[in-house]
Amino acid sequence: MTLKNDRYLRALMREPVDVTPVWMMRQAGRYLPEYRATREKAGDFMTLCQTPQLACEVTMQPLERYAFDAAILFSDILTIPDAFGLGLYFVTGEGPKFRKVISSPADVEQLPDVDIADELSYVSDAVGVIRKELAGKVPLIGFSGSPWTLATYMIEGGGSKDFRKAKAFLYNHPEAMHQLLSILADAVITYLNAQIAAGAQAVQIFDTWGGILTPQAYQDYSLRYMQKIVDGLTKESEGRPVPVVLFTKNGGQWLEAIAGSGCHGIGLDWTTDIGDARQRVGQQAALQGNMDPSILYASPAAIRSEVKQILAAYGSGPGHVFNLGHGITPEVDPDHVTAFVEAVHECSAEYHQDT
Amino acid sequence: MTLKNDRYLRALMREPVDVTPVWMMRQAGRYLPEYRATREKAGDFMTLCQTPQLACEVTMQPLERYAFDAAILFSDILTIPDAFGLGLYFVTGEGPKFRKVISSPADVEQLPDVDIADELSYVSDAVGVIRKELAGKVPLIGFSGSPWTLATYMIEGGGSKDFRKAKAFLYNHPEAMHQLLSILADAVITYLNAQIAAGAQAVQIFDTWGGILTPQAYQDYSLRYMQKIVDGLTKESEGRPVPVVLFTKNGGQWLEAIAGSGCHGIGLDWTTDIGDARQRVGQQAALQGNMDPSILYASPAAIRSEVKQILAAYGSGPGHVFNLGHGITPEVDPDHVTAFVEAVHECSAEYHQDT
Repeated sequence: MTLKNDRYLRALMREPVDVTPVWMMRQAGRYLPEYRATREKAGDFMTLCQTPQLACEVTMQPLERYAFDAAILFSDILTIPDAFGLGLYFVTGEGPKFRKVISSPADVEQLPDVDIADELSYVSDAVGVIRKELAGKVPLIGFSGSPWTLATYMIEGGGSKDFRKAKAFLYNHPEAMHQLLSILADAVITYLNAQIAAGAQAVQIFDTWGGILTPQAYQDYSLRYMQKIVDGLTKESEGRPVPVVLFTKNGGQWLEAIAGSGCHGIGLDWTTDIGDARQRVGQQAALQGNMDPSILYASPAAIRSEVKQILAAYGSGPGHVFNLGHGITPEVDPDHVTAFVEAVHECSAEYHQDT
Repeated sequence: MTLKNDRYLRALMREPVDVTPVWMMRQAGRYLPEYRATREKAGDFMTLCQTPQLACEVTMQPLERYAFDAAILFSDILTIPDAFGLGLYFVTGEGPKFRKVISSPADVEQLPDVDIADELSYVSDAVGVIRKELAGKVPLIGFSGSPWTLATYMIEGGGSKDFRKAKAFLYNHPEAMHQLLSILADAVITYLNAQIAAGAQAVQIFDTWGGILTPQAYQDYSLRYMQKIVDGLTKESEGRPVPVVLFTKNGGQWLEAIAGSGCHGIGLDWTTDIGDARQRVGQQAALQGNMDPSILYASPAAIRSEVKQILAAYGSGPGHVFNLGHGITPEVDPDHVTAFVEAVHECSAEYHQDT
């Protein structure tokens, strides 16, 4: 099936495009009433993730409303720890939790051998269903949490304010931590390659909590394992390269190091000037981002103004995928997203005239 | 009264010292059983802040246990909004709250004219009592929240996960936001000058939430008003310069701009390599930081190893005040703080031999 809109893939390969492509992290999410309806129908969040038809339904919803240039698989970053038997569940208003946690090096030793592709076949199945439903409209992004980010949840048993258990584990048991991260990196490789085999045309690694580390710990415990994943991924599928995007929230100080991983794109949060980032990263990678999601609470005029500033900061030429600097939040007015997407497409053409 | 230990003041002026001075943000805090006892005796947190004898008692407690090179006034960053009539109160486990909030430009217009020095005389009184009790042992640091940080709490009515009300206010009502920040900057100047007049020998501005802004918004809405404060502060007291430290959490990408404010010291969180920071800031300012407070949960050996790494990264010569990259957390073992302070003093002498 021919891809009708490949701006997103082209931009990640730093190839010319007509306008800057745009998608949003968590674009299939609670800000959409139709999402909330499907979520209610599903009963609980894990059922929504684990039922390919339902995952497909919510993946497609934002594409009905908005001119997004990519779809992203609806799933959760914590499916891998769940596959390792930790028992993921969700408490409304409290975020993800695990029934079992990793609290000692012995717990790492005792992690079961898991056939990730088999255990998480519901994810590959969803990818297949979504690709069929997309019918070449836009490319489909697969994703996973980064090893470090998965490890923090496995050790904390859920989210955390200061991640002290994960950090105490890192500083007191560095070898066991490396063992855990190595197991997780292998699992992520298998998982993402299964998504690619099922039809994912690009993949993103969400390193949500890499930015809470010191620069050295980030290199040793987060980036190193993302690098391993980049090296282990399927390079081509359906005759095209499969670009990999690394997104470390609060990683703006480490862009040079991230670019050195060989990833195709770097996700930026809004605390980095995207023009400075482009200068620092040069030809090594495309950039994805980076509007503060909170600006979607402001007026459509304020949103448009911010979009223009970011486009101007990036400047002319290819290599930019517009996105938010983090996921869209549940209380945003869906009409503000229309203003956002239209602003990106309408205001970016002038930056692509020479290309 | 002669100051017996002026390492902290000397380091901020980038003058030679024998060993690197050290203190901790929130050193008078819940990790100390004696603090919890005084807190219980006081009844509620605001009584503790507003009773100079009790504020003095908890300020002195960490100095009894540890060889800290500075004391910091025990108070709260939110005394100024409270003085403007917003009604600060604390709910255990939930952080600070305000009874009234700023929710429109009209609310800014209607802020009362407040005699800050008079309204917050309990703070200056505490400074006087503490100075007497310190008897020249170490210098006393005064402090305030930054205008932007105060504004976020005043608009949100407390802490926030995404600060969407504060950001929507900023993007929808930029003029009213500037008006609010200007009022707050004037209040902070008055407040800190009163602390200096009462005996504070250095001051620190806590810009806890500057790091949630875009680079441009940080410059326009946070740094600009901290700059105004730096310009407006009393320059000398008791025959010595009064150094000013700016601490923007998650501000590591903007150190050059912060240094340009004319502050004497820049507080760093742990996501910035202090050696890189020194290169970027050069002779413009001293650096304060920057051990991850979570490392205090690790073993004394791990703490010492991290202290050594930070000292080595900073390198030889003056201009470094050792600190954590954020406040110490309540669950830390007090003995680990002993290991931390001893490590800084014991391992830093070699970096000061030529000076």
